[in-house]
Amino acid sequence: MQLGMIGLGRMGANMVMRLLRAGHECVVYDRDPKAIQTLVDQGAEGATDMADLCAKLAPPRNIWMMVPAGVVDAVISDVSPHLAAGDTLIDGGNSNYRDDLKHAERLRPEGIHFIDCGTSGGVWGLERGYCLMIGGDDEAVERLDPIFAALAPGAGEIERTHGRSGPASRSEQGYLHCGPNGAGHFVKMVHNGIEYALMAAYAEGFNLLRHAGVGRNDHEVDAETAPLSNPEHYQYDIPVAEVAEVWRRGSVVASWLLDLTANALLEDPDLKGFGGRVSDSGEGRWTCLAAIETGTPAPLLTTALFERFSSRGEADFANQILSAMRYQFGGHHEKPKD
Amino acid sequence: MQLGMIGLGRMGANMVMRLLRAGHECVVYDRDPKAIQTLVDQGAEGATDMADLCAKLAPPRNIWMMVPAGVVDAVISDVSPHLAAGDTLIDGGNSNYRDDLKHAERLRPEGIHFIDCGTSGGVWGLERGYCLMIGGDDEAVERLDPIFAALAPGAGEIERTHGRSGPASRSEQGYLHCGPNGAGHFVKMVHNGIEYALMAAYAEGFNLLRHAGVGRNDHEVDAETAPLSNPEHYQYDIPVAEVAEVWRRGSVVASWLLDLTANALLEDPDLKGFGGRVSDSGEGRWTCLAAIETGTPAPLLTTALFERFSSRGEADFANQILSAMRYQFGGHHEKPKD
Amino acid sequence: MQLGMIGLGRMGANMVMRLLRAGHECVVYDRDPKAIQTLVDQGAEGATDMADLCAKLAPPRNIWMMVPAGVVDAVISDVSPHLAAGDTLIDGGNSNYRDDLKHAERLRPEGIHFIDCGTSGGVWGLERGYCLMIGGDDEAVERLDPIFAALAPGAGEIERTHGRSGPASRSEQGYLHCGPNGAGHFVKMVHNGIEYALMAAYAEGFNLLRHAGVGRNDHEVDAETAPLSNPEHYQYDIPVAEVAEVWRRGSVVASWLLDLTANALLEDPDLKGFGGRVSDSGEGRWTCLAAIETGTPAPLLTTALFERFSSRGEADFANQILSAMRYQFGGHHEKPKD
Amino acid sequence: MQLGMIGLGRMGANMVMRLLRAGHECVVYDRDPKAIQTLVDQGAEGATDMADLCAKLAPPRNIWMMVPAGVVDAVISDVSPHLAAGDTLIDGGNSNYRDDLKHAERLRPEGIHFIDCGTSGGVWGLERGYCLMIGGDDEAVERLDPIFAALAPGAGEIERTHGRSGPASRSEQGYLHCGPNGAGHFVKMVHNGIEYALMAAYAEGFNLLRHAGVGRNDHEVDAETAPLSNPEHYQYDIPVAEVAEVWRRGSVVASWLLDLTANALLEDPDLKGFGGRVSDSGEGRWTCLAAIETGTPAPLLTTALFERFSSRGEADFANQILSAMRYQFGGHHEKPKD
Repeated sequence: MQLGMIGLGRMGANMVMRLLRAGHECVVYDRDPKAIQTLVDQGAEGATDMADLCAKLAPPRNIWMMVPAGVVDAVISDVSPHLAAGDTLIDGGNSNYRDDLKHAERLRPEGIHFIDCGTSGGVWGLERGYCLMIGGDDEAVERLDPIFAALAPGAGEIERTHGRSGPASRSEQGYLHCGPNGAGHFVKMVHNGIEYALMAAYAEGFNLLRHAGVGRNDHEVDAETAPLSNPEHYQYDIPVAEVAEVWRRGSVVASWLLDLTANALLEDPDLKGFGGRVSDSGEGRWTCLAAIETGTPAPLLTTALFERFSSRGEADFANQILSAMRYQFGGHHEKPKD
Repeated sequence: MQLGMIGLGRMGANMVMRLLRAGHECVVYDRDPKAIQTLVDQGAEGATDMADLCAKLAPPRNIWMMVPAGVVDAVISDVSPHLAAGDTLIDGGNSNYRDDLKHAERLRPEGIHFIDCGTSGGVWGLERGYCLMIGGDDEAVERLDPIFAALAPGAGEIERTHGRSGPASRSEQGYLHCGPNGAGHFVKMVHNGIEYALMAAYAEGFNLLRHAGVGRNDHEVDAETAPLSNPEHYQYDIPVAEVAEVWRRGSVVASWLLDLTANALLEDPDLKGFGGRVSDSGEGRWTCLAAIETGTPAPLLTTALFERFSSRGEADFANQILSAMRYQFGGHHEKPKD
Repeated sequence: MQLGMIGLGRMGANMVMRLLRAGHECVVYDRDPKAIQTLVDQGAEGATDMADLCAKLAPPRNIWMMVPAGVVDAVISDVSPHLAAGDTLIDGGNSNYRDDLKHAERLRPEGIHFIDCGTSGGVWGLERGYCLMIGGDDEAVERLDPIFAALAPGAGEIERTHGRSGPASRSEQGYLHCGPNGAGHFVKMVHNGIEYALMAAYAEGFNLLRHAGVGRNDHEVDAETAPLSNPEHYQYDIPVAEVAEVWRRGSVVASWLLDLTANALLEDPDLKGFGGRVSDSGEGRWTCLAAIETGTPAPLLTTALFERFSSRGEADFANQILSAMRYQFGGHHEKPKD
Repeated sequence: MQLGMIGLGRMGANMVMRLLRAGHECVVYDRDPKAIQTLVDQGAEGATDMADLCAKLAPPRNIWMMVPAGVVDAVISDVSPHLAAGDTLIDGGNSNYRDDLKHAERLRPEGIHFIDCGTSGGVWGLERGYCLMIGGDDEAVERLDPIFAALAPGAGEIERTHGRSGPASRSEQGYLHCGPNGAGHFVKMVHNGIEYALMAAYAEGFNLLRHAGVGRNDHEVDAETAPLSNPEHYQYDIPVAEVAEVWRRGSVVASWLLDLTANALLEDPDLKGFGGRVSDSGEGRWTCLAAIETGTPAPLLTTALFERFSSRGEADFANQILSAMRYQFGGHHEKPKD
């Protein structure tokens, strides 16, 4: 099947590669000619601009945009003049699902279908496949089924969910039509919100393992330091990389994120290469906003997000206020850093 | 290798089965003669009491206790008079690692080794193997290696952690000597603390997906109800069981807990069989206590625990205070349940 | 000074009363003629409709709207045709500050000033005065100074902040021009966000005091119940109403919210009249949304909000998922309610 | 009435001063002779050692210990040989209530009463009075009533709680017999737990006010930075010191902690003198431990504690793990500090 791809960054390029391997035909465009050439070398057809891209695709065209959320609007403006009724535009990036609603509405009068597709898989997707969460009208989603099936991981060796039988459903192959426009990015958004909290759960646990030997340290005895009442309980030197490894087998906390943590800790159990300034990139925030607006309690998801803010120094003024209050009511002076 | 097993509940019995299948010799005891007989039928040797159990084991004896944390003390009292220097007692249950320190100290003068072994695997362990986190002295742990190896899942088909080579380490086979006494249960404790937060992360996320359609409901317009500013953003009917399934493949949040969630939601997406009173059974609390005592931030782990308390009504008085305050300062009357 | 008041509910009516007592002249309107009559009996002038209200006010008119956030738009539409350049509309209700920006922009072309005024004080404001947080252009805010001064509590007997001298600033009299449009409601929004967390802090603490005697209860010993390791530490029967009272004097936690809590607990330490379904009414949510959007860590403010959602049953599905997972991995059945 | 005081630090010395002013007779001891001399100059009687202190007090003796929690044991050992049946020892410091149980049990066989007294007031107590939370047997607490009454603030000008009439209760005078031994420090412990969360609530709120202008900054547009979708909503420059002041009058969040915050922000709205490393000193931790052990949800109290840990760098390894995971699954490199 023929697909146009706009945006050949890490994600877009790998997705084209995976589609080419599956026998699909890809016409590709990026602002960077080198990115185009790399894929042409692999068997894709290059386009010189949006008009050329659309000209090289047989109607009804299917064009996948794999660009930063902030430029989707502009790309739609650039490409849509070259589209016709019946064509389909797919936003496979990390857009806010609310923008999907606007984009679909904008294209609807011209008869252009819009599909939002949340794409999970990162740098591993080329080999492992991409988990796809899709929103849009049935006709367009149905037509693109071969593309989704090729990008998705497939059923693989994973043990089947109890109670499922017959041919593998789409969800069992790693892609799902979640509902009308926005539903795909909504599900992907919640996916990332969960991801933040899963990551933080492991991080807190491993950090606690790193603190298992605090009883061996000398502790200052002063009014500004909470005493450690039972230092004999905290005399351990836990091998965190080995713990990550052992939990990968037979334990309740086994997961892909744990696999990655095992990779990282094996390389350096002290993680010296990382300073601990943790970015967040949109979906985590949107998940928390949605939780608040819908009245859904999500304290872990939100706290995980706030911890990232704090890691970047955004709690500093709050902490200064606490120190200032302590000075005011108790004459407590801040303790200097060790 | 010969092993005595005390406690033939769900966990203990399955572990004996797994050991028998691996060719080990098991002498088994339980207060319930039927539990003994079931395993005798499978090839174990039954014991009539502690003395008989110890008599049937060749020194140096290895005896595994798989009993509730609250009775470990009593079992040690009952069995230790029949033990000799060089024997080893293993506590494979869910004990607090602080009790391990006491137990080891109590047995040390008699030359009896004590091993604490955190055991993860639940009802799936018989087939899947048990993840074992072990604390104790090198000599005893070394001697029991064949038993641990048989109980553990083994290396299996799981992709190897990047950077590992050569023969599979014990951690890669699913068991780990974590350190001296208490280290095993300490690591298991943190494992369960993480587990609570992982579970809560998924639960919050799926709950949010269930709220994705709140914009379709009528909303009361009064001073006691926060308005939903953009109902058009919450018009979805997300198929949660299918979402759980699709996330199992290629997504960042894939995990064994997600596999189980997919099982449960496929059976009934409304989970009508569950009222939502969530138990907690010790390790989660101990993890949070350790975080506080060691000065380790663990807001997700602790909040996950507190949410379980709340699910059982333990926040009720706090909520009544909030309503009472609101009445006091604003004359707000509580809204009745819909 | 002359002021028009639209909206004579609990808040609006009391504010008119306070203004009349201070010697100001009020022209009042409400959809309910009885509400108008009550204030006419107290010395206000009644208006039959918006046109009449505006006719009875000498230009430049100052009109205060004290209506639900949801109808401010409609009221502006109704009243603005009767206004002229130089007049001022004040929104003293609980509007979202983002709406202030829209309202100000809408009125600006006609030369009508818009002021947003966050008003704190509740049912106590008539006697105690209202704390006012004001946003808008200098000219309009300056002109209304006598009105704000009359509504505000004034400097009172409260001990002066160290370092302040000379005549009492406006902030010391209980009202503050916080910045341009929206700034007043922004500060009021954060005020309410803080309020939620302060309330929850007391509620959690008093709930803990209520749990100080749990060691006296029998505890079930089973795998579904975390053991209470030191029941002798929890044998107290703390008199919570007396504790609230004693903390009012000389303690670090003394506050007006504590005063109210003391009122409520004295009336009934069991708070039997309250079921614990806690409403939230907008500002708390907006505060958390702003924290997320600006990258400001606010875990307490947000958790306080989520606890209110949970008190209304919105965590139920999340809790059912936790129970379902526990059943899946460990065969744990939910414990019934005691 | 006669009282012995051991420990003449900031708290102990001020308490003696307050007692002397009220006409009580104080015999004082401290390891530092200068501290003794200062109070002798004010009218106290000095003691050269524990024996001398006890000799100078007429039986039944009442001796107040105002020493760090860590040395209470040692002081009891030093002073108790000089005491007789019927005497009373008071621990007025910040001890764990569990230690009170041990101390009372240790002294009981000798007929010595033990009283635990949680003391709130800090550097302001001399003038403002101390809020006292008392645990112990009726006889001893009753006998010391004049001392407690003199240390406490008294009823003062504070508006009476609705429903109270007749002579002011002890709680209305600022001291309370909370129950048997440990009850005083238990209530003080919870008091401090609440205090931490109240402080954090204000700190988060003021920090959010400081972020109200983030829309004026340039924002990087890259995959590592969450976009600020509506910069026009965050254009404010909120005068935080003035906001603290205005909230002191008529608002729902008025409190003594807010008064102190107003002091601090007036002195320097940027709080440049504070680095934001916030200490915690025992009670906050014990409150959270008690919440966990009793099954009481206390997410705000605990999160406030954890934020203090994080302010001191204790979350660093957790944050490094998050960055490492992000690098593993998405190839994300950490952004450097601006």
